[in-house]
Amino acid sequence: MDYYEHFRIAPGSKLDLDKFDPVCKDLHDDRDLAETEMLRLRDRLRQLQYSLYAERKRSVLICLQGRDAAGKDGTIRHVFRAMNPQGCRVFSFKVPSKVEAEHDFLWRHHLVTPQLGHIAVFNRSHYEEVLVQRVHNMVPKEVWKRRYDEINNFERMLANNGTHILKFYLHIDPEEQLERFKKRLDSPHKHWKISDADYAERPFWDDYTDAYEDALSKCSTDYAPWFAIPSNRKWFRSYVVLKILIAAFESFNMSFPETSVDLDEIRRLYHQEKKKENGS
Amino acid sequence: MDYYEHFRIAPGSKLDLDKFDPVCKDLHDDRDLAETEMLRLRDRLRQLQYSLYAERKRSVLICLQGRDAAGKDGTIRHVFRAMNPQGCRVFSFKVPSKVEAEHDFLWRHHLVTPQLGHIAVFNRSHYEEVLVQRVHNMVPKEVWKRRYDEINNFERMLANNGTHILKFYLHIDPEEQLERFKKRLDSPHKHWKISDADYAERPFWDDYTDAYEDALSKCSTDYAPWFAIPSNRKWFRSYVVLKILIAAFESFNMSFPETSVDLDEIRRLYHQEKKKENGS
Repeated sequence: MDYYEHFRIAPGSKLDLDKFDPVCKDLHDDRDLAETEMLRLRDRLRQLQYSLYAERKRSVLICLQGRDAAGKDGTIRHVFRAMNPQGCRVFSFKVPSKVEAEHDFLWRHHLVTPQLGHIAVFNRSHYEEVLVQRVHNMVPKEVWKRRYDEINNFERMLANNGTHILKFYLHIDPEEQLERFKKRLDSPHKHWKISDADYAERPFWDDYTDAYEDALSKCSTDYAPWFAIPSNRKWFRSYVVLKILIAAFESFNMSFPETSVDLDEIRRLYHQEKKKENGS
Repeated sequence: MDYYEHFRIAPGSKLDLDKFDPVCKDLHDDRDLAETEMLRLRDRLRQLQYSLYAERKRSVLICLQGRDAAGKDGTIRHVFRAMNPQGCRVFSFKVPSKVEAEHDFLWRHHLVTPQLGHIAVFNRSHYEEVLVQRVHNMVPKEVWKRRYDEINNFERMLANNGTHILKFYLHIDPEEQLERFKKRLDSPHKHWKISDADYAERPFWDDYTDAYEDALSKCSTDYAPWFAIPSNRKWFRSYVVLKILIAAFESFNMSFPETSVDLDEIRRLYHQEKKKENGS
């Protein structure tokens, strides 16, 4: 099963989220098998990260988007904890600070794009500027409408300069969201996470659906694909994200860099030091 | 065994690294037992990180210092990979860029100190400014000499503002370093890591020892302790760092924050949504 191709939004195609199944039971229904496979997949991802880090020829930018409780934090916990933190940084974008809001909408994101050899994970991203800002009319329509092109231009520039971009939209349905809100209420140690805002966005469900459809349709490109991930089942969501990441990283065809030194000279230095040590 | 107290440099004391045993076989010599315990310790550290993140009342800054091949990268791999990357970032400080060098010596470090709820790991740190810069006379003596006070003042200010600082010096002896260089030569997949500089610093071993002794003696304070870690044995090094981190985090006496919302009101909202769902 080629999850990469299956869940990729083909450039130029129109996504219809009402027809998108957030469960996909027919694709995989054996959680135990998936959990076992994921142990191996995480090891593989770690190896691939090591190659990326050693090679220092490209970087990876991952955007995670989804509604409240869709599983962005859980994906970071279950997928990205596999990575060595030395080469992987997570950035969560909340309401912009005053200084951030006084810059163009891409500024704060551009500040933290990954350097060569590194991975940056955006927990929410510059796409909020065509999601929450559109749904709540925080900017005029002509402003958010031109942002799709502005985002594509920004991402193309990053890609041209060595950044591979992978964008994941975690799709749940409203029933699943409500279930997850309920679980927070039922677990006293999760009460601190509950926000009044959790319920305030639910009346705008369909508006968000429209906004996500537009964002994913207009901004899934060859250089920065969007993937829509069925996320009602947490284990399957993590499994699919892992599979797609590994397919992407493997397509880079990475290799360890050649040594930059004269190994014979290094061997000579080693023996010289060893002799000193034995002599002393 | 209280590793925290045992390996802490007491404020005002004078460290003598020539008398410091980089092995400490008598303290622990059962690697299998330690590896098993470490699985549990990493889980515990993860829990503590979660409390730190939830509480959002303090941050943690960890400095890793040590000579080439002392195990800074290995410590990150074996200890800090336990953490959720959402709240833990690693910063490696290499030779300063031109812009960095045109600022005061603390500037580039201050830029990336951790926010509340977060952990920052410095792989090398502002201490390089009293180590490599001192040993190679990159700045006049009166400049590096006043930096001990400047560093202490900087760290006291951070501590006063909610940042807990823990500093680890990974101590190996020259024989162990040479062994590790040899291993790089013997492993073709590690050849890309070999640098001519590896051997260039060895003639300055004793100068570095003096510089480390001064840095650790002058800058181990109540608010920002230094720990000297016996690091010839990699597993023991990771084990001790884990034990010290857990002791430090436990001393914070953290608790989950109270909920900021009216739970009854949230329950009412939940049932209202549930009714809508069933009605539709």
